[in-house]
Amino acid sequence: MQSLKDKIRREGKVYPGNVLKVDGFLNHRIDVDFLAEIGREFYRRYADAGVTKILTVEASGIAVACATAAFFHVPVLFAKKSKTVNISDDVYTAEVASYTHKTVNTVMVSREYLTAGERVLILDDFLANGAALQGLISLCRQAGAEVVGCGVVIEKAFQQGHALIEGMGVRVESLARVASMDPETGVTFLDD
Amino acid sequence: MQSLKDKIRREGKVYPGNVLKVDGFLNHRIDVDFLAEIGREFYRRYADAGVTKILTVEASGIAVACATAAFFHVPVLFAKKSKTVNISDDVYTAEVASYTHKTVNTVMVSREYLTAGERVLILDDFLANGAALQGLISLCRQAGAEVVGCGVVIEKAFQQGHALIEGMGVRVESLARVASMDPETGVTFLDD
Repeated sequence: MQSLKDKIRREGKVYPGNVLKVDGFLNHRIDVDFLAEIGREFYRRYADAGVTKILTVEASGIAVACATAAFFHVPVLFAKKSKTVNISDDVYTAEVASYTHKTVNTVMVSREYLTAGERVLILDDFLANGAALQGLISLCRQAGAEVVGCGVVIEKAFQQGHALIEGMGVRVESLARVASMDPETGVTFLDD
Repeated sequence: MQSLKDKIRREGKVYPGNVLKVDGFLNHRIDVDFLAEIGREFYRRYADAGVTKILTVEASGIAVACATAAFFHVPVLFAKKSKTVNISDDVYTAEVASYTHKTVNTVMVSREYLTAGERVLILDDFLANGAALQGLISLCRQAGAEVVGCGVVIEKAFQQGHALIEGMGVRVESLARVASMDPETGVTFLDD
């Protein structure tokens, strides 16, 4: 997605340790009009997939999922990272190691809202080592729901996540595939 | 907002301890088309307020904020509850006691994205004791930004949050004001 790559080049900040900060439009301050473009692009790629639900994980994924669901007119379900009084005990769970938080989280969804026969599109802001998507795929498979594919806004294509998810038999669509990043020279993309 | 009150009556579940679960459309599974109606209603109430930014707090507030920002065409900023590599050290912080999580969180925003002279609409899914809104107002005031008002989807009007926030000199708009709730008899609203 050219407009996304342009925006990452213009506004993204690269820090040592392969950290790409896009907190100006994606995961802190949200450019809602631009996110609608992102949602339209995911819709274009998955319009024929018979999607009945979009699954993501709190927190940054929620904005991406809602912007996309507005085109599909299907519900969003966001997996939770902690148990609250707002979620029942009757949940599916999966373990996810967070690259950004340096922790291991349990993600969970109520069984009530993820059921057999659904056709689920899984969305997230970033794909790096694939742990988050792997956890979300696990939740769907526990429920007997079919994963029609994954969509991520930014992929760190030099990590193994893309291959890992495809190895699980799941289609992956990344709107920007980062080939390399460097604090001095910035970001390059796979198809540059 | 009549359609919201109807939906709460139809789909909300009341548990002991004044817990109202609306995880079927608001804070776990998200009814995106209905959230657009909620966003339109906040826009109707604040259209003339000169809003330049919408501030909320992760996670459930994000969907409400994005749905509303789509009408205002302004950016969303969501306060974070934990420090990640995605946020700089240069932040405003405030302490917030969470009713649902039974914890005290520090919420934070990057100083870069909340600045003097902005006109901020603060949105959240629930208003109970007002702690979350109070924290978000504090972030704005530290930045020298003006809070044009708060908007909440569901208010527990039998708690002190509404009065607390108005006592800080801030307008509060609640789309549904719950007067009482009971596991047996359900929910009543202030204007029933």
